[in-house]
Amino acid sequence: MDNQIIIAIDAMGGENAPSKNIEGISIFLKRNRNKKDFFFNIYGDETLIIKEIKKYKITTNFYKIFHCSTVVSDEETPLTAIKNSKDSSMWNSINSQTIFNSNITLSAGNTGVLFVVSRMLLKTINSVSKPALAGLWPNKKNMNVVLDLGANVECDENNLVDFSEMGAALYKALFPQDSPKVALLNIGSEQIKGTETLKKAYVKLKDLSKYGHFQFDGFIEGNKITSGESNVIITDGFTGNVALKTAEGTAKFVTDSLKYSLTSTLAAKFSILFSYFALKKFKARLDPRKFNGAIFLGLKGPVVKSHGATDALGFYYSIDLCYRIIKGDLMSKIKNNLSHGNGKK
Amino acid sequence: MDNQIIIAIDAMGGENAPSKNIEGISIFLKRNRNKKDFFFNIYGDETLIIKEIKKYKITTNFYKIFHCSTVVSDEETPLTAIKNSKDSSMWNSINSQTIFNSNITLSAGNTGVLFVVSRMLLKTINSVSKPALAGLWPNKKNMNVVLDLGANVECDENNLVDFSEMGAALYKALFPQDSPKVALLNIGSEQIKGTETLKKAYVKLKDLSKYGHFQFDGFIEGNKITSGESNVIITDGFTGNVALKTAEGTAKFVTDSLKYSLTSTLAAKFSILFSYFALKKFKARLDPRKFNGAIFLGLKGPVVKSHGATDALGFYYSIDLCYRIIKGDLMSKIKNNLSHGNGKK
Repeated sequence: MDNQIIIAIDAMGGENAPSKNIEGISIFLKRNRNKKDFFFNIYGDETLIIKEIKKYKITTNFYKIFHCSTVVSDEETPLTAIKNSKDSSMWNSINSQTIFNSNITLSAGNTGVLFVVSRMLLKTINSVSKPALAGLWPNKKNMNVVLDLGANVECDENNLVDFSEMGAALYKALFPQDSPKVALLNIGSEQIKGTETLKKAYVKLKDLSKYGHFQFDGFIEGNKITSGESNVIITDGFTGNVALKTAEGTAKFVTDSLKYSLTSTLAAKFSILFSYFALKKFKARLDPRKFNGAIFLGLKGPVVKSHGATDALGFYYSIDLCYRIIKGDLMSKIKNNLSHGNGKK
Repeated sequence: MDNQIIIAIDAMGGENAPSKNIEGISIFLKRNRNKKDFFFNIYGDETLIIKEIKKYKITTNFYKIFHCSTVVSDEETPLTAIKNSKDSSMWNSINSQTIFNSNITLSAGNTGVLFVVSRMLLKTINSVSKPALAGLWPNKKNMNVVLDLGANVECDENNLVDFSEMGAALYKALFPQDSPKVALLNIGSEQIKGTETLKKAYVKLKDLSKYGHFQFDGFIEGNKITSGESNVIITDGFTGNVALKTAEGTAKFVTDSLKYSLTSTLAAKFSILFSYFALKKFKARLDPRKFNGAIFLGLKGPVVKSHGATDALGFYYSIDLCYRIIKGDLMSKIKNNLSHGNGKK
């Protein structure tokens, strides 16, 4: 059982917990009937969890429940949580990587607390000064990895280089058949554009790309994020968060406008009958649940944050992401990538 | 003729100039048949311009041509342009505000050169240290004003306060029936979120809003830009440019995905017949030509930059924007708004 992937699940985090979390596990089991290389350490209220597990008839081969008496609320701040949350499902699902054999932790709970407690319990990788939050972003060809999405408001060039090395490792772990192509998000593609920090990071990344573990595509503008030319997009946490939220808002605005137009006349309503499957396909392709799961990179153990408001299917996609991260051997890839940068800073 | 609005047009800037520029004027004339309160000072190659003017039978009552022997190319840098472009249509259309009676300048030419030459010839308003680039952005209710869209990579809190005062003035000039609601773009809506610069700007804007010339909505995240709750969105030029380009890229990505889905099956193709007018309405609502025209704010005279790649209809929307800016008395409104901030910095 050496190659078993052990995922620690915070079953109590997010809306409709533990119902959606356990249903998410059941979807994963259904879609991976032919596999046996995974196991869930489930943290939370044992009674509530067993009730849900019975509903989906999950076989005991695949999980163990660890009872936790408390839940981290959305109102908890990172500072008070360090004192208050030692008995919580979140805390124990993270600590599961240090005291048990879990390879990765998944929670849909309070992001700030998850970040701070993970950092405290799992520790930051020695050569990394700032861990970052990475996400998946759809593009014309497949998916991008984008980071930092909000963990660090201000970043220097060494942070951006670390993000690039870790982002390239994540991309390779998730899409092993493909090559990571790193680009820095900027306000122009010419080398003279942007802040001093970006210009310095450009020079360092160009140099590091000679090791061949990623291709460096230089600067790209925001409209190229979805083009699929580059697939590892690097930026500071402020810009990354604004870009992500702006893209989410724009996608919603455009699809809402479309919905409005398609229901504004009788003929248009009628047309939906004919385009039903096409529109369903369109919706499925951009379904945010498929991109659910932000990855904390830079800690000695990997942690995935699911959207709190997602449903069972969205939570399933986060579980699948955890599985692929460990299957793709993310931590060794990060270690290997970061070794190229040693002494270069 | 005291209330005549005089627009200086660089007829040679952008793709397909002067054809699209003159056709844009002809569209404006057609759509404003009942008005007589405008006049165009047209700068560029007289022979080429007259050829186009004849095509659209534009009556001589509405324009005067000023022959210019050169054109600023896209490759020209701001530094060399100061030496080389004195005979150009762009230079003279800007200078038209200082040596003739033009109220505003419109160009679809080289953005960097337009910005630097405008700043040199028209001068920055005394209390403003950094002029900014403002744009129109669709929202659920109508349109936002967003700035800075890329003129200033780094901004301090006083710059953000100036942008707010000028953006509120622009909003009021363009939408006189509505009230400006200013918000700062951030990575969270709570007052403790974001950079020190943003926190300082928050305090100053809250104080300035007591004069009642704008409502201050505090911080908003990127997904709220299109919600229509706030209508003057303030950010530094780096973040603003990334947000704008990301929104453009996302809108294109979503509509391309839709097109692909709607032509992927025969039934879907058939459905387009029924939804033709609905889809046309959808496309019309988000037509980027309607939002064509970025406004340089902070100079002693207003300058509008049209997209270089737009067509005659897009150029028309920029002309209409110029007309509304002067009709709405932008410069007095800016002066009035900035007066509240005096001594507050």
